Amino acid sequence: MKFIIQRQQLISSVQDVMKAISSRTAIPILTGMKIEAKSNGITLTGSDSDISIESFIPAEEDGMINADHIEEGSVVLQARYFPDIVRKLPEKTVEIEADENFNVTIQSGKAKFNLNGQDANEYPQLPKLQTENSFEIQSDLLKNLIRQTGFAVSTMETRPILTGVNIKVENETLSFTGTDSHRLAAKSIPLGGVNFSLSNIVVPGKSLNELSKILDDKGEKVEISVTSNQILFRTKHLHFLSRLLDGNYPETSRLIPDHSQTVLHVKRKELMDTIDRASLLAREERNNVVKLITKDHQSLQITSNSPEVGQAAEEVSIQSIEGEDLKISFSSKYMLDALKVIENDDVVIEFTGAMRPFIMKPANDDSVLQLILPVRTY
Amino acid sequence: MKFIIQRQQLISSVQDVMKAISSRTAIPILTGMKIEAKSNGITLTGSDSDISIESFIPAEEDGMINADHIEEGSVVLQARYFPDIVRKLPEKTVEIEADENFNVTIQSGKAKFNLNGQDANEYPQLPKLQTENSFEIQSDLLKNLIRQTGFAVSTMETRPILTGVNIKVENETLSFTGTDSHRLAAKSIPLGGVNFSLSNIVVPGKSLNELSKILDDKGEKVEISVTSNQILFRTKHLHFLSRLLDGNYPETSRLIPDHSQTVLHVKRKELMDTIDRASLLAREERNNVVKLITKDHQSLQITSNSPEVGQAAEEVSIQSIEGEDLKISFSSKYMLDALKVIENDDVVIEFTGAMRPFIMKPANDDSVLQLILPVRTY
Repeated sequence: MKFIIQRQQLISSVQDVMKAISSRTAIPILTGMKIEAKSNGITLTGSDSDISIESFIPAEEDGMINADHIEEGSVVLQARYFPDIVRKLPEKTVEIEADENFNVTIQSGKAKFNLNGQDANEYPQLPKLQTENSFEIQSDLLKNLIRQTGFAVSTMETRPILTGVNIKVENETLSFTGTDSHRLAAKSIPLGGVNFSLSNIVVPGKSLNELSKILDDKGEKVEISVTSNQILFRTKHLHFLSRLLDGNYPETSRLIPDHSQTVLHVKRKELMDTIDRASLLAREERNNVVKLITKDHQSLQITSNSPEVGQAAEEVSIQSIEGEDLKISFSSKYMLDALKVIENDDVVIEFTGAMRPFIMKPANDDSVLQLILPVRTY
Repeated sequence: MKFIIQRQQLISSVQDVMKAISSRTAIPILTGMKIEAKSNGITLTGSDSDISIESFIPAEEDGMINADHIEEGSVVLQARYFPDIVRKLPEKTVEIEADENFNVTIQSGKAKFNLNGQDANEYPQLPKLQTENSFEIQSDLLKNLIRQTGFAVSTMETRPILTGVNIKVENETLSFTGTDSHRLAAKSIPLGGVNFSLSNIVVPGKSLNELSKILDDKGEKVEISVTSNQILFRTKHLHFLSRLLDGNYPETSRLIPDHSQTVLHVKRKELMDTIDRASLLAREERNNVVKLITKDHQSLQITSNSPEVGQAAEEVSIQSIEGEDLKISFSSKYMLDALKVIENDDVVIEFTGAMRPFIMKPANDDSVLQLILPVRTY
């Protein structure tokens, strides 16, 4: 194997593929990165037990030469050293060569590295996905779906299924849902021309988080294909494969209240800043609890109390308040997480009593739903 | 106590003073920050067992009002909450008020915090330094002295005296020296009009590091006063007091070789980048050892070797090489630390054999000296 490659292209592909490589893995060769040279380009592969990523650098693209002097072949290199070496090399191009004993030479200008490689035949084959269940979405929309739901998944392994995001395709709608059983985040977007439905697809939150870091924001097309135990996200030069979580995702629709007793319209930023300040004196308490109090249908107050330290209280201006007056306590962290991902200056909060879950939405937008369970403080 | 203060001024003073406050201290009141209001301005004080910092905000300065509505008094506030509160308040000004029971109210716009304060009379008095041994230096020069020597102090408590920087005043010269017994960094500058000498002043490296973060780069005057066990750095609005280390600082001048067998002139950046690259394959080894080899008085090579992983080798262009050819091994970390703080494109390295300490200086500048002990690799 031999090729000369543009270093910037290589750095960016290596960075993407590294997101799938872990130094702690049961299969030693997976601590390495597979490099495969073919006449049409170079493919890098990384994998752990959850995610596999393949990044392809075409030899030529849009009239630009990315790689040339290609002699076909493949090798596996230790991922602990290769990325730093590539990043710190002095010149714009890098020559990489492997001999029949997998001794690899990496050369750029006067800098020369010899690394012990491994036989690429010992690297596991990635499964080829055979499925009819595939659809396309723009990368910026996909990143948004992940950003607005992924933060709400559970980080605890007590109910493993909740560490994933539930992806559904139904009635030409694509929806993502994340919940840790104390709060829930859901977002749906229309998906035209899809004649199948998917319901129990649960992708590890960590996988989606890594995917989100790799996808660009320019709205390139992502093809999503699903089998019974894997999901593949494919762009022009990238294959991102994740395992699915086993088990039945809970039916979440019945958690969402269908009526409300108190409806608040407030400015998102002002509410967020006020809760952020109040949370400073809620640290001592379990869950960073703050309290929201409405008075006489016209004022809204956020308070917190940490007996040893002190109290905070602040009024928030409201645009409107309908229904009954309310006192309710909740985790300031959950509330801030939810407010952060809402992309609208105005939010609507609908309460059905101090002990019932409440929901929060951008004003005039039903595609996003944030649900939070209150905290009992009496 | 009561006053209204510009929030930006308060934030910046609080940040400075926080550098002396530790949440782990044997004296509980020292986890707090003392606030003292007088008619001419507000003083904040923080202290741990090593450092004390006082920051003064004048009520009026250059025709600008920083604080007004001042009612004199003082209080101590828990430093765990106060800085975040001040930072997150909504308006440009903050009103702070303490009643006779040390209940403190902090108000800015609609945000109101009540904090439990403590009696400032229980806060320890900072010692007043009485000394004739004081001199002045510009803050940018002082920061440079610290930057070029402080990194070389020991981080191990086995020889506590080496965790400090030795400050000397002799023959109208101010010099700073740091060493961990494997390397040494020294820098001296002329100090006019000083008619005393100081030799065994050893300031904890950590103190100087914190001081360096607080001082501005604009060249304001710093007055330095020394007693037998403390040192005070004083600017217009800041008092920075540090304890001195007990014990005798070792005589370092005899470590510095007075002749050389091989002298190299090289470009600093190129040597630094090359050693940085070679160090990637020196990680496995104790001390990140790389090797420097000269050949036939005309070429210089840097190599590293990590048997399990591979080798790196790279030639460095040299401007000149005088004396005998040489093979020497050293810690790449020590070499990079020293090269980073040299402020010159060209460096001179003087060797006196593979087993002897070598020195490195900026070309045409004897005020800085970096000494490194080689590593035996045979």
